[in-house]
Formats: sequence, C-alpha cells, structure tokens
Amino acid sequence: MSAQFNPDLPEFAGRHIGPSAADVDAMLAVVRHSSLDALVDHALPGAIRTDGPLRVEPAASEAAVVEELRALARRNQVMTSMIGLGYYGTLTPAVIQRNVLENPAWYTAYTPYQPEISQGRLEALLNFQTVVSDLTGLTTSGASLLDEGTAAAEAMTLMRRSSKAAADAVLVVDRHVFPQTLAVMQTRAKPLGLAVVVADLDGVDSAEALRAAAGDLPVFGVLVQYPGADGELRDWRALASAAHEAGALVTAAADLLALTLAVAPGEWGADVAVGTSQRFGVPMGFGGPHAGYMSVRAGLERSLPGRLVGVSVDTEGAPAYRLALQTREQHIRREKATSNICTAQVLLAVMASMYAVYHGPAGLAAIARRVHGHAETLAAGLTAAGIEVTTTNVFDTITVSVPGRADEVLSEAAQRGVNIWRVDADHVSISVDETTDLRDLEAVWSAFGVAGPTEVTVAELTWPEHLVRTSDYLTHPVFSSHHSETSMLRYLRRLSDRDFALDRGMIPLGSCTMKLNATTEMVAVTWPEFAHLHPFAPAHQTEGIRGLIGELSDWLCEITGYDAVSLQPNAGSQGEFAGLLAIHAFHEANGQSQRNICLIPASAHGTNAASAVMAGMKVVVVKTAAGGDIDMDDLRAQVDQHRDDLAAIMVTYPSTHGVFEDTITELCALVHDAGGQVYVDGANLNALVGLARPGKFGADVSHLNLHKTFCIPHGGGGPGVGPVAVRAHLAPHLPNHPLAAEAGPETGVGPISAAPYGSASILPISWAYVRLMGGAGLTRATQVAVLNANYIAARLREHYPVLYSGHDGVVAHECILDLRELTRRSGVSVDDVAKRLIDYGFHAPTMSFPVAGTLMVEPTESEDRYEIDRFCDAMIAIRHEIAEVESGEVAVVDSMLRNAPHTAKALAGKWEYPYERSAAAFPVGVEAADKYWPPVARIDGAYGDRNLVCSCPPPEAFES
Amino acid sequence: MSAQFNPDLPEFAGRHIGPSAADVDAMLAVVRHSSLDALVDHALPGAIRTDGPLRVEPAASEAAVVEELRALARRNQVMTSMIGLGYYGTLTPAVIQRNVLENPAWYTAYTPYQPEISQGRLEALLNFQTVVSDLTGLTTSGASLLDEGTAAAEAMTLMRRSSKAAADAVLVVDRHVFPQTLAVMQTRAKPLGLAVVVADLDGVDSAEALRAAAGDLPVFGVLVQYPGADGELRDWRALASAAHEAGALVTAAADLLALTLAVAPGEWGADVAVGTSQRFGVPMGFGGPHAGYMSVRAGLERSLPGRLVGVSVDTEGAPAYRLALQTREQHIRREKATSNICTAQVLLAVMASMYAVYHGPAGLAAIARRVHGHAETLAAGLTAAGIEVTTTNVFDTITVSVPGRADEVLSEAAQRGVNIWRVDADHVSISVDETTDLRDLEAVWSAFGVAGPTEVTVAELTWPEHLVRTSDYLTHPVFSSHHSETSMLRYLRRLSDRDFALDRGMIPLGSCTMKLNATTEMVAVTWPEFAHLHPFAPAHQTEGIRGLIGELSDWLCEITGYDAVSLQPNAGSQGEFAGLLAIHAFHEANGQSQRNICLIPASAHGTNAASAVMAGMKVVVVKTAAGGDIDMDDLRAQVDQHRDDLAAIMVTYPSTHGVFEDTITELCALVHDAGGQVYVDGANLNALVGLARPGKFGADVSHLNLHKTFCIPHGGGGPGVGPVAVRAHLAPHLPNHPLAAEAGPETGVGPISAAPYGSASILPISWAYVRLMGGAGLTRATQVAVLNANYIAARLREHYPVLYSGHDGVVAHECILDLRELTRRSGVSVDDVAKRLIDYGFHAPTMSFPVAGTLMVEPTESEDRYEIDRFCDAMIAIRHEIAEVESGEVAVVDSMLRNAPHTAKALAGKWEYPYERSAAAFPVGVEAADKYWPPVARIDGAYGDRNLVCSCPPPEAFES
Repeated sequence: MSAQFNPDLPEFAGRHIGPSAADVDAMLAVVRHSSLDALVDHALPGAIRTDGPLRVEPAASEAAVVEELRALARRNQVMTSMIGLGYYGTLTPAVIQRNVLENPAWYTAYTPYQPEISQGRLEALLNFQTVVSDLTGLTTSGASLLDEGTAAAEAMTLMRRSSKAAADAVLVVDRHVFPQTLAVMQTRAKPLGLAVVVADLDGVDSAEALRAAAGDLPVFGVLVQYPGADGELRDWRALASAAHEAGALVTAAADLLALTLAVAPGEWGADVAVGTSQRFGVPMGFGGPHAGYMSVRAGLERSLPGRLVGVSVDTEGAPAYRLALQTREQHIRREKATSNICTAQVLLAVMASMYAVYHGPAGLAAIARRVHGHAETLAAGLTAAGIEVTTTNVFDTITVSVPGRADEVLSEAAQRGVNIWRVDADHVSISVDETTDLRDLEAVWSAFGVAGPTEVTVAELTWPEHLVRTSDYLTHPVFSSHHSETSMLRYLRRLSDRDFALDRGMIPLGSCTMKLNATTEMVAVTWPEFAHLHPFAPAHQTEGIRGLIGELSDWLCEITGYDAVSLQPNAGSQGEFAGLLAIHAFHEANGQSQRNICLIPASAHGTNAASAVMAGMKVVVVKTAAGGDIDMDDLRAQVDQHRDDLAAIMVTYPSTHGVFEDTITELCALVHDAGGQVYVDGANLNALVGLARPGKFGADVSHLNLHKTFCIPHGGGGPGVGPVAVRAHLAPHLPNHPLAAEAGPETGVGPISAAPYGSASILPISWAYVRLMGGAGLTRATQVAVLNANYIAARLREHYPVLYSGHDGVVAHECILDLRELTRRSGVSVDDVAKRLIDYGFHAPTMSFPVAGTLMVEPTESEDRYEIDRFCDAMIAIRHEIAEVESGEVAVVDSMLRNAPHTAKALAGKWEYPYERSAAAFPVGVEAADKYWPPVARIDGAYGDRNLVCSCPPPEAFES
Repeated sequence: MSAQFNPDLPEFAGRHIGPSAADVDAMLAVVRHSSLDALVDHALPGAIRTDGPLRVEPAASEAAVVEELRALARRNQVMTSMIGLGYYGTLTPAVIQRNVLENPAWYTAYTPYQPEISQGRLEALLNFQTVVSDLTGLTTSGASLLDEGTAAAEAMTLMRRSSKAAADAVLVVDRHVFPQTLAVMQTRAKPLGLAVVVADLDGVDSAEALRAAAGDLPVFGVLVQYPGADGELRDWRALASAAHEAGALVTAAADLLALTLAVAPGEWGADVAVGTSQRFGVPMGFGGPHAGYMSVRAGLERSLPGRLVGVSVDTEGAPAYRLALQTREQHIRREKATSNICTAQVLLAVMASMYAVYHGPAGLAAIARRVHGHAETLAAGLTAAGIEVTTTNVFDTITVSVPGRADEVLSEAAQRGVNIWRVDADHVSISVDETTDLRDLEAVWSAFGVAGPTEVTVAELTWPEHLVRTSDYLTHPVFSSHHSETSMLRYLRRLSDRDFALDRGMIPLGSCTMKLNATTEMVAVTWPEFAHLHPFAPAHQTEGIRGLIGELSDWLCEITGYDAVSLQPNAGSQGEFAGLLAIHAFHEANGQSQRNICLIPASAHGTNAASAVMAGMKVVVVKTAAGGDIDMDDLRAQVDQHRDDLAAIMVTYPSTHGVFEDTITELCALVHDAGGQVYVDGANLNALVGLARPGKFGADVSHLNLHKTFCIPHGGGGPGVGPVAVRAHLAPHLPNHPLAAEAGPETGVGPISAAPYGSASILPISWAYVRLMGGAGLTRATQVAVLNANYIAARLREHYPVLYSGHDGVVAHECILDLRELTRRSGVSVDDVAKRLIDYGFHAPTMSFPVAGTLMVEPTESEDRYEIDRFCDAMIAIRHEIAEVESGEVAVVDSMLRNAPHTAKALAGKWEYPYERSAAAFPVGVEAADKYWPPVARIDGAYGDRNLVCSCPPPEAFES
C-alpha cells in the first residue's frame, strides 16, 4: 500500500525510504548495477558481511506500533514526584509543547553550523544564554550542556585548567551535593587522576579551613549545591573568598528557579555555575533529555566547554548570530581539547528559554514564590505536629527527621500516590514544584500521620537578608513581550521560519545521517506516562519504559553483533568516553593498566581523540594512505612500537571518507594480536545495519548514534543519544548508576550521565523505528542509503572529482566532492559553494571534513529521487557558475558564489552586482513562490569572536 | 503569573487576552475612558446590561482543565465500530495529523477570500475537488459541504431547480439510503413544500416504473445510496436512464473508497454525487466534523452550492487559485440564494485530500481491496456456518439475517468490544474498514457463535463486470509524488508557508472574531477517546462526550440567557435555519401557520435571508437610517403592515455596523407585540458575553458561532459550529435525531445535520475555553474586545472616517472605516488597500460588508497592543500613500496600492514601477528577515470565472 507497493517490505519502510521501487530501478541504472544486492556486494567486503537476516520482530504497522507503545506506557505508574534532586514536575506551556517539541521545523533542524539559515534557533539559544547568565549572575553562559552531572564534571576540569593550584590539588565537593552529580564527577575524575574530596563546607571561611577540609591537600576547585540536596540555602560568600585565597575556583550547582529569589552565585563569588534547566518547562522524562547549563565569570569564557552562541554581523552590517569561539572545540583541538562535548541539548534549551520568555521575570518569580510557599506550608504542617524539619532556609525542599521510620514513611507516601526521597534510614527529603497543590501536601502529611493546614500560604521570604536576591534579571524586552499565547505563537513561528530544517528540504550532511524523523516515532515522547517519570522513581513504577529499554537494547545488540549495550550515554561523545573507559577498566582488571596508547587515524573525527584523552589514554595518530584508507604499513609499525602499551585503536567504519575499507578485518586482527582492543566509531552505522555487524567482524566496542542511524531528530543541535555496545568481555565495565542498581553492572565504571538511562524519554523514537521497519526494512534502508550516495557520486563525478571510493568507484553511504583543484583555479571556496547552496534552497553538505577543501555528502535513504536530483542539478549549476570564474569571465569577488547567500533585503536595495537579481535569488530549480529566504547575508564570524557578545543584544542593535 | 499579573483574573485569561494590564491602561487613555467598566457603560445601553456576574464554574488552570478533559475522555468507551452508515474507522496518517490537524498554520487560517495569501489551502482544496471529481466521474466538485446528510439535501434542492418536472413533482429516494440522510432531507423538504417518497428502486428501468414508484406523481429527482445501506452494490444504469427520460435528475450518495473499485456514478449516468470524505483519514469524532462533498456533471457547475475553488491567473500571468463563481453565493444572492451554505469543512477537506495524496491511486485501491477482502471473509465465515448473508455484491458492509436474534447478536458483539448495527429485529449489518483486522472478524464470528476462517483472503472482485471500475483516477502527478513521509511533510510545509494565518499575524476581519485558538483548547480533539467514537454508538458508551456537551450547553444558556440549546447545527447557517424552523414550528403549533414574513434589516448578512427562505418564510427588508441603525419608523410600518403574517425579525446585535443600538429593546417589544418572534443573529456575540444576554433583553432565539466567540479555529474556512439557543417556548421545536433520542426533543423539527450532535469532536475546544476563562475571564475578554476596537477607531479616525458609532463615538467590538470619499477622490479602492496590507504583512479586514466601499475591522481581545499598533501604523502609512494619489503626485495605476501585493518574483525581475522596490516590499513595520511573501500577485478572478477550471491544472501550466 505504500509508495513502493512492494509486497516484500512493510508499509512503513516505503514511507521512511524516499525512492520508490521504480526510482530505485532507475537509479540503479545510473550507478550501473543490476540490483541493490549487487551494488552492496560491490561496496562491502565479503568478509564482513552478515550471513543472515536481522533477527528482530517482524515489522508492525504504524497503528499497531502506537498501540504497543500505549501498552508499554500503561505499564508505567506515574506518581506525583516529590523526589527532587534536580528533577521536578513542571508545566510545559501547551503553546511551547505543540509548536517546539512537536513541530518538525524545530526538531528536525541540524546543528547551527550554517548560521545564515539557523538564525531562529540561534536567537532562542541566545535567549537561553541570557536566562542563564542573568539568573546565575555570571557574564557568559554556553548554549547548553548535556545534564547537570556532566556540567559539573566539565566545571571540575575547567577549574583544574584555570587554577594555578599545585598538581596534587584536589576538588572539594560539599556533602550536600546531589549524589548523581558527585558520582558523575568521580567517574570523570578517575582516569584524569584527579582526587575528589567530599566535605562539610558549611562554615569554612578561610583558606586554611578549606585545606583542612581537603585532607590537608591543596585545592583547585570547590563545588557546592545551591540550595543543597537537603534543601538548605546556604550563604557561601566566605567559602568563595577562602577558595579564591587558596587559588581555587568555585562552582555553584544552582537551581535556576531558586535563583529568581536567591542571591545569584555570581553575586556571592562563584566563578562558575552549572545546573539543569529541566524545571523550565521540560518534562522529567525518566531522566532526560534536558538542557544542562554552565556560565562563567568574565575571563573564563574562552574556557567554556561546548557550544557558545554569539552576536556578529553579516556582510550588510546587520547583527547576526552564530556559534562563537569555535576554535575551542574538540573537532578543532582534537587530543588537545579540554572536553569532548559535541552535541548540546538545543531543542530542550529552546524550550527552557521559551518558558522564560513566556513567563517573564515577574512570572518566574511568582512561580518560585508559589513553590516556596508550598514548601514552607509543607514544613509548617509537619513542624506543628512535632515532626522535626531539619532544613532552615527552605526554597523547595525540606529534609525531615524520622528516626528509624524513613522506609515506612516512604511506603505510606507511595500508597497515597506520592514519591518522596529516602535520604537514609532516619531521614527523608521532599521537594515541591510548580505542579504541587494542596492535595499533594495533604497526601504527604497523611503519610506522616498528621493533618496540615487547610490552605497554602505564599508569604514573604523568611531567609536572612543576605540570601535574598535584589538584583534584576531578564530585563531584555524579549522577556516581557510575548506573554499572551498569540504573541508567543507568532514569536515561535517567526523564529522557526528563519531556519532551514528537514521539513523544507534535504540536509545532506556527511556522517550526520539526517534521515526522516517519522511522526509515529515521535508521538510517545510527549505522553504523560513517559514524560512524567522521575529517573529515581522506584523500579516497579517504571516497568514500561524499562521494558522498552530492554527490547531496544536487545535489538541494538542484534543489529551491531555485540553482547551488551548501555543506553546511558546521552551523546555520541559520551558513548565514546564510556567505551574507552570500559577498555581501560578491562585492561586494568587484567593487570594491564600500563596499556594507555590509543591509535587514531588521521582522518578521525576530533571527538575520538578528545574522548581518548578524557579516558586517560595517550593518542598516537595513524597515517592515511594515498587512497584515503588507513596506511596499513604505518599501522603495523605503530602496533609494533606500542605493542606493550597498546590499549586500543579507534576507527570509523565505513571510514570518515565514506569508504568500506577492505583492511578492516586485518586491522582488527593486528590490534588484537598486540593485546589491544578495537573501538569502531558507530557514526557511520547507517551504512552497515543489516549488512555487517561490527561486533562480529572484529570490533570489541562501538558507540552508536541513535540521533543518526535510529531516527532521533537532531533537534537543531541536540538531544542526541550515544549508546555504547560491547562484546561480552567488556560488559562488566559498562556504566552503572549509584541510585539505580538495575541500570548497569555492579562492576561498572560508574555513571557517565546524571540519569541511570540517560535521555530515556526519547528512546521510544528509536524503539518505534526498529519496530516499524523490521529486519527487512532496516536492511533495505541501508541498501538505499548506499544507492543514494552512489547515485549522487555518479551524477556529480564528471563535475566534481569524488575523492575516495572503493571497488569500481563504489562509495558507501556518503561521498566526498573534492573542490581543491577548483578552488586553486578559481578562488571559489567550499564556503562559497555552501553559501550559494542556500540560494538554491539547500543546507550545505559537511565542509572540509575529513579533508579540507572538500564537501562530504550523505543523502540517507529518506531522500527521494526528486530531491536528490534537485540537489545534483543545483551542484551542477553551481559548477557552471564556478566555470565562469575559472575562465576569468567573472571575478570571484563579483560572483554569485562569493556574494551568497542573497537576502530579500538585498534584492530590494541598490543592486551593484554584475549579475541579475533573478539569477541570484531564483536559480534553476527554485520556485519563486516557495523560496526559502535566508534572514541574513553571509556572516563575519571573526568579527564576533573579536567582539564577543553572548547575550541578547538590545533592540536598537537591529535598527537599520 | 500571567502577562497581566492581575490577581483578579485567571492566569489563562492573561494568555488569551492580548493587552497586558499596563497596555489596557494606556489604551484607555487613548480612547479617553477611565476604566474598562466606564468604556463599556458608554458603549452598551443600560437597559440590556446583565445584572450580575456569569454563573459558570470558576476558571481552572490549563493543567487542571486537561485533567478534567482526560477524566471526561475516560468516561467514553471506545469500541471497535462496525456500524458503518457513513462513519468508518480510518487511519489518519501521523504526518497529516501532526502537520495539518495539529498545526496552527493550517487550523488558524481564515476562509480564502483573500486568495493571494491562501494559495496553499486553495491548492489543497483543488486537490480535494480533483479527488471527488475523479472518483465520482463527474466534471466539477465543490470544495466541501458540511456532511453527507446536508449534501444530500442540497442535491435535492439542486435537482428541483435543475429539473423541468412539474411543480408537484417529488423526490424519490431508494429505500437503502442511510436513515440519517433521509431524515435530513425530510427536514429540509418540509418548509420548501417538497415531497420525499421512499421506494424500492431496485429494478426500476423505465420512466413509467419510476412514476409508479413515486406514487404516480411526476419526479424531479432520484437519490440512491451507492453502495446501499444494506451493503449491496447495485447497477443503477437503467434507473438513471429512466429518470432522465422522466425529466428527473439522479444523485448518487456514494462512498469514495468504494469508488476506487466500483464504476463511478458519472459513468452510470448520475448527474450529481454526494457523500462524505470522512474515511479518508478523518476520525469519526462522534459524528464530525468531516468534509461532505458534492460533484456534478457538466452543465450543473453554476448550480453547485457552497464554495468552489478554481484556477485563474495573476497580474503576472501566473496560474493562481481562488474561489470561483462567488456571485452564486448566499452573501451575494441573499433571499434569491439557492442555499444558505457559508462555512465549508476546509480543514477536513485538506486532510482528506492529503490522505489521497499520501496513498495515491494504487494505495487507495489497495486499501479498498483490503477492506473488501475483510468483508468477503467476514461473510464467508458466516455463510459457511449456515448464517444467511443477504448482501450479494459486497464492498465493505454485509447485512445478516438473524430472525428474532438481532438484539442478542448485538449484545454478544458488544461484549466482545465490537459495535454492529441493528437494522431491525431480524437483521444486523456489519461494516468493515481500513482498521479492521482478523481479530475483529473473529470477535464478530464469535458473537454469532461461529468460528470463521483463520486468515483473510484478499481475492479478486467477484462483482458482475458492469459494476467493476476500469477507468483511471488520480492521474495528476500530485497523487504520485508524495508517498514518502519526508516528501509529504515538505509538501504540507510548502503549502502552509504560502498562506497567512493567525500564527503569523492579525486577521482583523469584521464579524469573524479571529481570536486565539489556544493549544490547550485544541489538545483533546485528537485523543482517541473523543476521535474514535461512532455517532450512533450506544449512549452508555459515550457518557464522557455527552457529559461535556451537557455542560457546554448549560454554560451557553447561562451566557446567552436562553433556556435551551442544540449543538447539532454544524455551521452558523445551519443554526439560523434551525432557529427559523423552530419559530415556524412554534407558530404552526399555535395555529398560526400563516405567519411567514421575516423582517430583515438591509444591513444583514446575506445568509439571514437565505436561511429564512429555506425555512419557508418570505423576506421583507427593513431600511437602515442615516446613522446606520435600523430605521425604526420603517420597522413600525412594516410590523403594522404584516401584523397578521409576521413570523419573525432577524437582527444582528450589536449590529453588523458594529454598534450597540439603543433601540433593541423597543424593537423586541414591537415585534412581540405583533405576535412575531425575535431572532438575534449571534455573529457578534463576542461583544456581549458577560455584559448582556440576548435571551434576557428580548430575543427568542439566536444561533451562536462557536468558531467565532468560543475559540474553535476557522480551519481555513471550516469547520464551524453554530448552536441554536432558544427561550423555553421554542425548546420543543429544536432539532432532534431519528437515531439518538437523547439528542433532541421528541417534538423537534427533525435533524438538520447527519450526526446527532453535529461536529461533536471539536466541542471540547469551546468547553475548554469557558472552563479556562471562567465568568470573570469571559467578561474581561468582551471588555478588551470593545477596548481594542475603540482603540483602533481612535487611532485611525483622523485618517479614515469611522462610519458608524454609538454614544460619544464609541463603537462595539469592530469598526467600519469609510473609504468611499477617498476612493472617489483618488480612485484607490478598498481592494487596493486590502492587497496593499498584504505587503505590510496583514490579512485585510472585511471588505465592503455591510457597506460597499468600506473596511470593517474587528481586532478581538486576543490581539495585543503591539500588533494593533502595527496595524494602525500600516493603515496610516497606507493613508499617506493614498494621499500621494489624491494629490495627483502618483497616478493610481502606477501606485503601490494598485500594484499590490508585490511578490518576491516581481522584485527580482525588471522593475517598471515609479517607486522603489524596497518601498513596495518593505514598508514601515516590516522586518525584512521575517517578511511574509505572497506567492502570487493580484489575481484576476473574472478570468477564472470565464475559463472555469476546478481541478488540478497540469504541471506544465506552471512553467514560466
């Protein structure tokens, strides 16, 4: 019944895969292969091919899959969560849920590397940065991190780098830190050789006292939770002074909602603030995804990990946003990088920022006061009944002393539909949030066997004056302009209209696999049964989501050929880190802890090297041979040289050059022979699913990118999910979690994400994809992905050299167009071509990776022949434009290429170009009526880096 | 916590109402009133003011309202429906549900009266028309009707008008028609004096036999169900010939899915086809809304009721869509109109058309074959067990003979989760659909106590050859281009991007009340518990939705001051008709059936007059006085003259001139005194809610427009809901329904919609609105609506005369800008201004209604001061542009006004205008980056009417 009317394929596969059966035949003719099987037989080395069909359940229809998801959802028991610890009930404004989280214009967008066509989400991220810097009182905030735990770990390494303290200096963490945050820092600290000391920092007010708390060691950094996990809001001014005196930096892990009422960390002396923006309208979702944050004081901005949005100007002099200071990032700095952070949590940061836009400063403060009022009322009810509340300066959480009765109270509360937190056998803590009402408080009181007040009092703050915030925040007009739903809706539409996402056209980014994110895959994400689970809820309440995670894990093992998988890593970079930690731990367990050399080919993604360093390894680069493959001679030499210390090799397969290298099995054997482990980066798994399994052709571990191969949308630059899959011998060394024994092996390396299952709420997407496609559909998708890439290579080869290919010129699932010679002859750069593609209505391919001066194109299986032809036609037309420059007919500075992209504003103004307006704006294939107009002209990135502005510019900046 | 931070208002009211408290104060200063109360006291006559607050439940928060809706939803019991009778289970493609039904770009659009900014939905509607004409085999289809029942009633009157049969000729309806269709036709026929004869037309093959079947009367029309309600597909060729021989026309009420396999009505001789497109992906929704359809053979196109989309050209010669043949419509023809149809079902027609685009001809046929296979398998299972199936040529429905056991079988089926239909005590009918699977068949077999086959056979059709379709359909490329979800998504995005809806900016249409359609109001519409109910499901299964309907009815009574309400009318026009029928029936019951004069002011909406004629009344026009009010002297004279025959007066309040007339109470008294009834058209109820109640200030009946005052979105031209509200004496004469005793009074006038509760699935929207606003919020909304209109009047009065106003120049909720003098002096028309507003990024106000040469502006309460100021600034800037023409500086033909709207394509081309491109495209207030570009230039409507094309033009038409 599908487009394909192909009785052998499930209907959904026909919806997911772009080309129809007839198109596939026509495209096979162009690539000169008789069938998909024949093409794939040419592309893939026979030695690695899978010997049978994938053993996953037969595909089910979309309606059936939705029913199955509903059945899983019903197996979750959604209780009122008063657990807190960084995860709170929140009310997602419906206008934001529908028009951001459920709108493909937002969720199918790519990372804003092409800023001219990403101005909408860049503005939203700038709003996010402004929210974070305003509330934390620190000058510069990044555009989001993965979660609070990893943000704290990043703060730890940032403090280490920025502190001049001695090499043996330690991190001191206040004992009231969230337990998962501490654990994530510990996992990170270990391979780096950093010591983490937990201490009671209350009252520490001198460098000496701090050193004493640190076990008489120097201190490079201090981290405090603000308010503490026990609910207490403490004054850390003296501690901050003491730390600074001792040459240490101070990080506050701070609650953004509390900061609307409490003195900002920047105001009491913190250098860094980290945390999560979850409670700004992003559902708990059993742990994620949410946008973590980090902000820093002036002077530290160039040390910020992750993405940072800044303001610059375009060639017309108009303000324009783009990612700032990109040279800090891991893909540039590789093993010298300070962090392997790559993916951010853009979609969630957008939601959180819009929550702030929707409520504004007064609205946020009103919510905070209401939360505080409920917490105080809760406490008052208990205290009045003679129950001891140990928290004095309360924001939203109280700790209650119940000697010997914690389990009993927990159980009584659960019977009333409320989860509270067991601190120890004698204490429980209870957090209230935006969703709490009197009935919830009554349930808690009842669990304690007391009757509380009959109404909630939202009284004035009773905190000591020095804890009460007096400074303004969110004074930028954007936070007071869109409080009606109509205005909010239009703001969201306006921003999304500035952007180019998959709902407008192809995003042929090499290695990023921008495939269809089908609606049916997305629907369950916003169901309350998945969205409203606390990650530390009792296991028996979360059987549905954990059942889903179990099935998805099994399927991923079957697809990759590995024996075990952990879904905890919430980005590919974290999966890499987890995989390398597992290797490290494996060697250590075998008494081989000296094995610390990680071989990485020159063509590898920079994150590989950064992750290896984070895992305590030393990176040794393996050369690339002339054809683009790994230089096997060099590999043999390196393996020989490092035979005793060899920990691992990290390779991408098919390679980052888009080629299935024949040498992969030999490579695996060589490394294993030397006692090393083989890490296959799963970035290009979309070329393997159903055809070959890394776990069977020699690899020991891979991370996958569910946001590439398994249909989780890129969200404009996150969320991602990067599970790590391993063979059995590495399974005991997968991540685990201190608060969820069932989430990993007892012998595991500790948590690498704050939540036991990472970004659990988006796992239904990948689950649904596998369920809808079945083995046959998944395999067909891979075949068509390879076909689509080869079709592009075939159509464009005579216009642009295809840099690398395997047998008979066959590429894998992507191909590299080499522009270097053209650039040399004409001066037209890959950048010029990329920007000119915007005029044609396309997102550019990957630029200059893995080879400078080239474009890497990955169409994926979801693009149909119409769109691929439109792209090829555009590239060919652009080639003719380049030819005019080559021939000297047009000077490069006067060319449409160099002056691209062309804005509507430019079209209306004085026209000083030697070409026609219509040629600039409406080249071949562009329908005038449906034209995508870039909102700004080409952006001058360097200008912005010289004049760093990373929060919302005043409206006057936009006056022309 | 809202924008307003107004503690007296519910938070949601602050989201719904645009201006903040501070803005309200500033705007009051401009209109020179000290408070909202003072303004309203000036605007409304004291005599009609409500004396207390609205007695509806206090407002609840958005989260609480969603919970209440969930609780109501849980009270519905969703069974597998095999009832059929025009309502079938269907699988809404997820990509269509999310990106049309849940996308404000589609659902907040207005009727495409401004075609230049409606090209997206016009293309979708043209696709709909193509689907209907192709499948029915008739040349011209309209852009949707309200439902199958009303479409059949429209076909009846069309056949009467088009037939030359004698005045006493009757309509003959085959006995296998759907019962609700017959009943709706009977309700319509009665006031028009048309006789409807039900007969067995099987075997009727001569004019004589037809006359005999008609009780020996001449026949003007024949209507058959195809396939019949009993499931039988009959060959009607001979009947059609016989009818034509007798001078009668033939209408087929046909199932669109069946037509993919069965010979098309147009092929066997039908003149007209009607039906519903519900099963093309639109959920049953307890009866609606769905898009009804009508198509006609060549020669009848100018008699089609309702909207018709056609192809024309724009001033640049490009093909462009717009509503065709508008002079047929009721707002032009008034009492001479042949139908009062106004609203269509655009949103649902778009969905149905996209379902066809998504599946394509082969996909639809495959679905139909699958359905047919299930029906045949079902029948085979019963027959094999010796149970008699009386249907021979089966498509999707079988009738089963169960002597004396119908109730028992029904009950057994219900116990197995399946609803089937009780035809009579001895027969049941069972319909299968796209969602049916083997388990459903097994449940039915089990209910009959038999075991059927273990698999479903999709065999070849066993129908006689002359019933099998051989002709092609949906051969236009659009039906074979978007079968992958990616392509479908992009097509939907591309079309919606061509359109201007509320999510982009203000739509200040006078009398259309384009207010916020809040997301929370919309969410429940797509929940399965509301979406998947059959309208004839047993009442005990539908307690949730009927409870909601009951509460909404109560609230509407409280708000309007009436005693009873019927939610059955699925458009305002139908509400009018129902109200007038009630008046007619009331007079009849009082022995006053001679009362047939309906007084209607000259300024009334044309639908009023058309409805009156349909209700069997004679329209007498009452003059308008100089100030725009009703001429009371003329009224007195008319009442006197028609004292004995006076049935009713229909007035709009506040008037269509946007004024609260002081004379309303006197008018009511005058008419009552003469024995007449007062009908107050509720179109302008948004100016009254919480301030005055028609049912208390003298009116007897009103229809309301839930899609105006009560937040149901306009959907681009439907759905609408037009409940009729009456005082107690008219309550016995409200609509009822033959298949749902609980849906209306036993003494009612019959059904006026096919479903007992009309468009039930969208009633949660209005329910949620009232629940979220509470009495205080609703009243405040009315006050701010009046403020916003007066603010516009105050700001624009010095630039454009405000035509009518009440005391001290105060208008009601809208104001009329008089351009007649300007037009006389400059030649610039209201059309020019309307099109120029597109360049400024606005939808035009209502043009030339109620007064030619004027613009009527209704901002509603949802527009904030920013947007209203932007509109006023644009109107003032346009006034300056007009001044340049007035002064002779610019010739009108050379003006930006006359050449508006300006497309991007024009901007890029040769520029022959005397003004700058930037002045044309980026006038004051337009941000270049966020510019809305009209996809076509000004459209030549007359060209299209001369060259009528109402189905998809070939792609070549678009080649430039």
